[in-house]
Amino acid sequence: MTKAAVVLLSGGLDSATCAAIAKAEGYDIYALTINYNQRNRIELNSARKLADVFGAKGHVELPVNLSAFGGSALTADIAVPKGRNEDEMADEIPITYVPARNTVFLSLALGWAEVIGAEDIFIGVNALDYSGYPDCRPDFIRAFEAMAMQATKRGVEGTWKLTVHTPLIEKTKADTIKTGVALGLDYGLTWSCYDPTPEGLHCGQCDACKLRRRGFADAGVPDPTRYACEPV
Amino acid sequence: MTKAAVVLLSGGLDSATCAAIAKAEGYDIYALTINYNQRNRIELNSARKLADVFGAKGHVELPVNLSAFGGSALTADIAVPKGRNEDEMADEIPITYVPARNTVFLSLALGWAEVIGAEDIFIGVNALDYSGYPDCRPDFIRAFEAMAMQATKRGVEGTWKLTVHTPLIEKTKADTIKTGVALGLDYGLTWSCYDPTPEGLHCGQCDACKLRRRGFADAGVPDPTRYACEPV
Repeated sequence: MTKAAVVLLSGGLDSATCAAIAKAEGYDIYALTINYNQRNRIELNSARKLADVFGAKGHVELPVNLSAFGGSALTADIAVPKGRNEDEMADEIPITYVPARNTVFLSLALGWAEVIGAEDIFIGVNALDYSGYPDCRPDFIRAFEAMAMQATKRGVEGTWKLTVHTPLIEKTKADTIKTGVALGLDYGLTWSCYDPTPEGLHCGQCDACKLRRRGFADAGVPDPTRYACEPV
Repeated sequence: MTKAAVVLLSGGLDSATCAAIAKAEGYDIYALTINYNQRNRIELNSARKLADVFGAKGHVELPVNLSAFGGSALTADIAVPKGRNEDEMADEIPITYVPARNTVFLSLALGWAEVIGAEDIFIGVNALDYSGYPDCRPDFIRAFEAMAMQATKRGVEGTWKLTVHTPLIEKTKADTIKTGVALGLDYGLTWSCYDPTPEGLHCGQCDACKLRRRGFADAGVPDPTRYACEPV
């Protein structure tokens, strides 16, 4: 019997790879995309194309307006940092951190998982590239699983054991890209940039673009992305 | 200095009492109301009036369409049970249970709390009247607090200690009502019914109406509610 998994699919490079891994492991994909009024809503188009490519059994695109709370460059009117090197990115929890974002996303995934009887959630968090995001760390994931067992009807009944899969958590961006390429993933369908140009190109200068470009270079894989500027 | 608290304010009897308690303890109220496409959306009007009465410093009414996942009589097209006695209600996890609802709500409250620097969240969960809801139990609340410390920038930095206050968790409905009355709360502003009549009356027959009506009777307090039928 095929097992079902809820996969958080933002449309980015990491979540797309994560979905490809879940698919390769034999899961039926229930793709959950959160429209949180992020600056880079263009990634939602990528999520739709990817859900189609993965033959998702279900795709829920859920508006949850986290900008109602403010507090992040991704949702509030705060400038996205540009042109930082990787030491600067690693230095502190970045301003693009959205408070409790992954907690909210995993909670929503948990609700859907309980409804469809899925015991598996996939999320493409990464503890290396985004070392400053608290909700991308293994300690957070384990604490979420423990909470989920207390939170749900099936967990309390003991008929269910939730696992949050984080196959990319220790991978470099280059390793992630190599994994996806080996699984036949077309990265031209994915979106990374935090601050797209009006023409719909990747800006090439924000942290996400820099990590993406560097990832393809390090992986030795041709980068299918259209950037608005050359590498600096 | 006044402390800020995020209070989950549905518009119901319990959350209104919870907000009254937070206010009496000296907190500035940041009221968070989730429009989850619940059948009883009429409670949102109550939440607005209550936020005003409590002089909330902020009131966010956030649409999060949990009916996208289905699975509950409160959000999907499943009949709300009527005319059950309290033994029947206590018998099992009720069909009005919304999967992972309180997890989602607390996660959103957590995001707002982190943005405004609040260390306190109030939620009017009750382990007695709704003994079948897994996410109304102290074990769940403690697991959520532990997760929250791992989930957030301030938690990981150790500059923050989140407390989820559940002042009603061990109270009977009658005790809750007595508490609110002592604090001057006008329960005529609150809404409980899962299945309001087209005229906007409480149906008087669903589990929530039965618990409400019984609570006022047990408390010996006049019930300000307009029900569509007499007690059976």
